[in-house]
Amino acid sequence: MRFLKGHGTENDFVLLPDHDGTLDLTADLVRRLCDRQAGIGADGVLRVVRTAACGEADHPGAEWFMDYRNADGSVAEMCGNGVRVYARHLVDMGLAPAGQLLLATRGGVKDVRVTDDAVTVDMGPAAVGDPVTVDGVAGTFVDMGNPHVVLPVPSVAALGVLSPDRTDLNVEYVEVVGPHHLRMRVHERGVGETRSCGTGACAAVVATALRTGEPRGAAYDVDVPGGRLQVTWRADGHVLLTGPAVVVYEGEWL
Amino acid sequence: MRFLKGHGTENDFVLLPDHDGTLDLTADLVRRLCDRQAGIGADGVLRVVRTAACGEADHPGAEWFMDYRNADGSVAEMCGNGVRVYARHLVDMGLAPAGQLLLATRGGVKDVRVTDDAVTVDMGPAAVGDPVTVDGVAGTFVDMGNPHVVLPVPSVAALGVLSPDRTDLNVEYVEVVGPHHLRMRVHERGVGETRSCGTGACAAVVATALRTGEPRGAAYDVDVPGGRLQVTWRADGHVLLTGPAVVVYEGEWL
Repeated sequence: MRFLKGHGTENDFVLLPDHDGTLDLTADLVRRLCDRQAGIGADGVLRVVRTAACGEADHPGAEWFMDYRNADGSVAEMCGNGVRVYARHLVDMGLAPAGQLLLATRGGVKDVRVTDDAVTVDMGPAAVGDPVTVDGVAGTFVDMGNPHVVLPVPSVAALGVLSPDRTDLNVEYVEVVGPHHLRMRVHERGVGETRSCGTGACAAVVATALRTGEPRGAAYDVDVPGGRLQVTWRADGHVLLTGPAVVVYEGEWL
Repeated sequence: MRFLKGHGTENDFVLLPDHDGTLDLTADLVRRLCDRQAGIGADGVLRVVRTAACGEADHPGAEWFMDYRNADGSVAEMCGNGVRVYARHLVDMGLAPAGQLLLATRGGVKDVRVTDDAVTVDMGPAAVGDPVTVDGVAGTFVDMGNPHVVLPVPSVAALGVLSPDRTDLNVEYVEVVGPHHLRMRVHERGVGETRSCGTGACAAVVATALRTGEPRGAAYDVDVPGGRLQVTWRADGHVLLTGPAVVVYEGEWL
């Protein structure tokens, strides 16, 4: 079985080319592939399949469907870093032209833009809810398709090991470094601290803009342990996520 | 750059075929290859080079030299699980016949036996030293080329997170499951708890045999988190380490 391995700000994925949808991708196989010692090792698997062959969706205009699975084998709707790595792979392989493309996901069709240096994805609108208290602090609740609570902190470096008292949602600890420049650490639901979280970076910018009264439309740099992302909360409410996405190696599972 | 990835009881390695010794394997490259998110991910790198081309040793009868590097880029003498994966790779690729073979390492020439199911390596003699106290318990000190302290415990499952007060040597916590059957967890010097440690399994058997007065020569099963090893402390003082060793995939670094 042929595969590729890529990452976006060190959120890493096994890409499985299965253009005609013939692969039986079981939860057990996903777990074996994602095993970091005995398998390939990744945060998730991206099955690369034509929308017409995926059997799950019919999206005119979106030739490719991102079948995303978490490392534990579960099916997921969307992954902000995953969709960027997926798009990079399509362009690398000549399966899609660079520039604008539409990708089908279980979370709907995503508008993606691929350049040499970065991949941008329109993550859709952010929905802000009632504050949620984590570790005694009232944080901003932001729904990006998945639930986030954003906590402002003076320094993410000073936090030590992250162990929020709410683990049923994603918790972002966000430090303002300067104008439109944040530093973030994230504790992901069901995982723990990770090197990067695309939807978390989006939530961090939305919450910070609301808290500081910054008008929408500015591009923020968001530094995560795995690198730097750019996030723009557009005037129409959609959030754009930009960052590097690279394919590191290709392989053959023996 | 072509590579392969393999593991022995989940102690995992990147294999770099460099038969004629032309690769400049820097510490920086080793660290990038071993990075589990941005690279391939492994506990170490095994450069596969002919002894005549390695520039480090001259061992008549040992055609191949194992150039082993730790994930942090440092040069190491030997690795019990690594040498087994290296030997499996040679036999898989037809570079050596199955059965007995001699492998050159920085720790001397190793006598290895490869069968379909397992690879056995003669780890050389064990040297037992004065007891060392760890966490208030007097443990058995065993030198297997690297230093180990073995602590008998009633249950390794009951230990929780391992945090010995001696981290300048390898600490093995060993539970006797039955006759010639141990269960072990290991805290490796400079690493922390790992899924397996070949020399640690050898030390565990030597210490247990001494403690219980068992004569040499018996084959012990040693269950580690990553699988099962067999260890025999031979009458001549040499310790044989046996276990599975598999190559999981091959790849091309892009």
